[in-house]
Amino acid sequence: MADNPCPPLAQLEAIVGAGRVFTDADSLEHYGRDWTRFYPPAPCAVVLPGSIEEVQAIVHLAAAENLAIVPSGGRTGLSAGGVATRGELVLALDRMNRIEDFNPVDRTVRCGAGVVTEQLQQFAADQGLFYPVDFASSGSSQIGGNISTNAGGIKVIRHGMTRDWVAGLKLVTGTGELLDLNRGLVKNNTGYDLRHLVIGAEGTLGVVVEATMQLDQAPKDLAVMVLGVPDMPALMRVLGAFREQLTLSAFEFFSEPALAKVVAHQGLPRPFETEAPYYALLEFEQSGEVDMDAAMAVFEDCVGEGWVLDGTISQSLTQAENLWRLREDISETITPWTPYKNDISTVISKVPDFLDEVEAVVNAAYPDFEIIWFGHIGDGNVHLNILKPEGLDIDLFREQCGEVSKLVFDIVQRYGGSVSAEHGVGLLKKDYLQYSRSPAEIEIMRQIKRAFDPQGIMNPGKIFDL
Amino acid sequence: MADNPCPPLAQLEAIVGAGRVFTDADSLEHYGRDWTRFYPPAPCAVVLPGSIEEVQAIVHLAAAENLAIVPSGGRTGLSAGGVATRGELVLALDRMNRIEDFNPVDRTVRCGAGVVTEQLQQFAADQGLFYPVDFASSGSSQIGGNISTNAGGIKVIRHGMTRDWVAGLKLVTGTGELLDLNRGLVKNNTGYDLRHLVIGAEGTLGVVVEATMQLDQAPKDLAVMVLGVPDMPALMRVLGAFREQLTLSAFEFFSEPALAKVVAHQGLPRPFETEAPYYALLEFEQSGEVDMDAAMAVFEDCVGEGWVLDGTISQSLTQAENLWRLREDISETITPWTPYKNDISTVISKVPDFLDEVEAVVNAAYPDFEIIWFGHIGDGNVHLNILKPEGLDIDLFREQCGEVSKLVFDIVQRYGGSVSAEHGVGLLKKDYLQYSRSPAEIEIMRQIKRAFDPQGIMNPGKIFDL
Repeated sequence: MADNPCPPLAQLEAIVGAGRVFTDADSLEHYGRDWTRFYPPAPCAVVLPGSIEEVQAIVHLAAAENLAIVPSGGRTGLSAGGVATRGELVLALDRMNRIEDFNPVDRTVRCGAGVVTEQLQQFAADQGLFYPVDFASSGSSQIGGNISTNAGGIKVIRHGMTRDWVAGLKLVTGTGELLDLNRGLVKNNTGYDLRHLVIGAEGTLGVVVEATMQLDQAPKDLAVMVLGVPDMPALMRVLGAFREQLTLSAFEFFSEPALAKVVAHQGLPRPFETEAPYYALLEFEQSGEVDMDAAMAVFEDCVGEGWVLDGTISQSLTQAENLWRLREDISETITPWTPYKNDISTVISKVPDFLDEVEAVVNAAYPDFEIIWFGHIGDGNVHLNILKPEGLDIDLFREQCGEVSKLVFDIVQRYGGSVSAEHGVGLLKKDYLQYSRSPAEIEIMRQIKRAFDPQGIMNPGKIFDL
Repeated sequence: MADNPCPPLAQLEAIVGAGRVFTDADSLEHYGRDWTRFYPPAPCAVVLPGSIEEVQAIVHLAAAENLAIVPSGGRTGLSAGGVATRGELVLALDRMNRIEDFNPVDRTVRCGAGVVTEQLQQFAADQGLFYPVDFASSGSSQIGGNISTNAGGIKVIRHGMTRDWVAGLKLVTGTGELLDLNRGLVKNNTGYDLRHLVIGAEGTLGVVVEATMQLDQAPKDLAVMVLGVPDMPALMRVLGAFREQLTLSAFEFFSEPALAKVVAHQGLPRPFETEAPYYALLEFEQSGEVDMDAAMAVFEDCVGEGWVLDGTISQSLTQAENLWRLREDISETITPWTPYKNDISTVISKVPDFLDEVEAVVNAAYPDFEIIWFGHIGDGNVHLNILKPEGLDIDLFREQCGEVSKLVFDIVQRYGGSVSAEHGVGLLKKDYLQYSRSPAEIEIMRQIKRAFDPQGIMNPGKIFDL
């Protein structure tokens, strides 16, 4: 796509009304980027439609003008899937934030794409139900964006990804056509399920304008345990032992360096005195004393086997929340070290060997790099964080991290893993896509994009180049 | 595709070995059809490869000869997705029936596409685990076929469709390329999830040759209840009431005419004396007395509200099995009436109105038709069965049922429902696809097929025509 220095502002305003098209520098920066900060935003304009019809009209206009569109949700992405760097028109869904319909029998909610995750979670709670996909950016991420990145988070082991909660979605394609995909049906075997193709497509197939989300029964009381473990193989055995007896809703892990930093900087107490190389945080639903007794029995077995060095369990909601903070505050705590972050996965069983190999390679190449591990070990997804050594120039650090990426992704490829477990590809991982997807797959993806977006105006240059 | 009267038999035999290519009339009929019986099978030959490499070689040969291929699993399909009517080469996966690998940490099994559903269920049970997708044809349906039709069945309300259990799959495309999709990862957000496109594609994108299936924790003791209800709205309230208190693993329904026929022909006792217009069969996991007490309390509430007229609960495994037979034996019981069957769905909440409208339309057009309803009401999927009146000519009956189809599908379309909830489209529903999918969706499907199968040799003419 060529840059578009002259967006058709008057025509855009005719579609959405006055005061809903922006070209001022602040708006261009605000709407033109996401939570990544590597790519200077440079959209040509920002437009805020208020209805599906307005989105279709904007796309028709953009197609006529050959103007590229970047669909924009809560802009909390971590792979620059929603960043406009090449003079694109940002189409922000913020105004399409109404909950349109709720059906208590189907337990479905029809939402505008701009509904914020927390808004949906709260709406579900108000109905005595539960929307289980949850992550750090719930307060600003939007449903349309969640769908476009197939957002994961901390409860995937129990409740799956966003994909698993989309009963239907409406998409405006690159030709301005509105597709109404699956319409909330539980069972519908009538040809290719295009809904699943749109989920995780990062806006490259069109603009998600509405979704019918499935809700679930609210969970009963949740208990949280934090356990110190001697090594990663022991951690996997602990996962196996608890999973056999309880329905886990989370199984997270973090390393001692991660815990030490959180304790030092967040004013939180250590969970127990024993220092352990790794910690597991697990959460389960207690339907009664039976579950708590089972949890204690497994804990004692694990201690007996030497898989657990020490542990604690929440006795109240506040304690549970504080234990969760030991895991959830890591990311914020390490921000001052401008960490290099990588969101990678393998199958669960290979995680210990995979971590060993990554550590060995990084330590050999850059012995002064400190590695902070944490992540969703129960689903094979680990977050690799490398802290910038004090005194090292930030640009040099980034350059060295670029070298690290290749070493890490070589290992990911050898393990059949994913170079982006839950954050998507966007611009950030585009050059590494071939480590997880074959040339034949990428060529098929290109052709699929053409089927939805023959002019290539929908978020071009994200995931892959045409 | 033109007919192919001269398949390259010698070359096929060179690939798979002697005795694995058939052209005799019995084999052509056996391998050329599925459980539908409307389409005379007419393949040119049958080939039984024993490895992925052999499948690739066959596809390369077929591509060179422009010979159409029908991938063939357990041939239990109900929409003629696996029927070869036009001189195609049947590629049967029967020999690729090995369980290749099992990982207890990941709880995944890598299976050849020809592994039979029951074989996987039994393998899972032998590991103390559970493969939850279950249906009448489990004894002969194969995993590759289950994936290609996204098979559903009786536990969808709790465990979902086949789609939800495919952690990875290998596909040989129409160009003979092998795609290794998702490789068993729980989390992998690296572009379009082609795995989900292949699931339910009925062999039109290529041959599924291997799959990595997810297993689950085995369920605890299951209890079964059968309840008599006065009408469909009451049935929906019963579903709501039980679902709030228990985790249901099934919620099925059938009508009094269905029960009467099963009781008369299978020598089963009625579940209780009271005759009711409709019956619900529900199954739930009992983790202890708490669940049984909860079930009894909900039952009493439902009786008090007038939503339930009578009911019974299983006290043993044998009783549970006998109650299940009241539902599961319906299909076999009504076979002598050569029923016209339709597998349709709406969102759950609309089922009662939908049933009323369908009954009214059929009764008005053909007052002597007897309708037998049963199905998976907990997921919105009903099976409409119309029995042939005694004395009515079978061809005339089929012709009249063709007229009924259009009336029924008009209603399905008005309700935003599905003309094929779980059986797929194949040849049987191809002419009705537009009742559930828009012209724009169908055009995108065509282009997707071209991306996987540019020559159009993979199960051509199924789902849609190119």
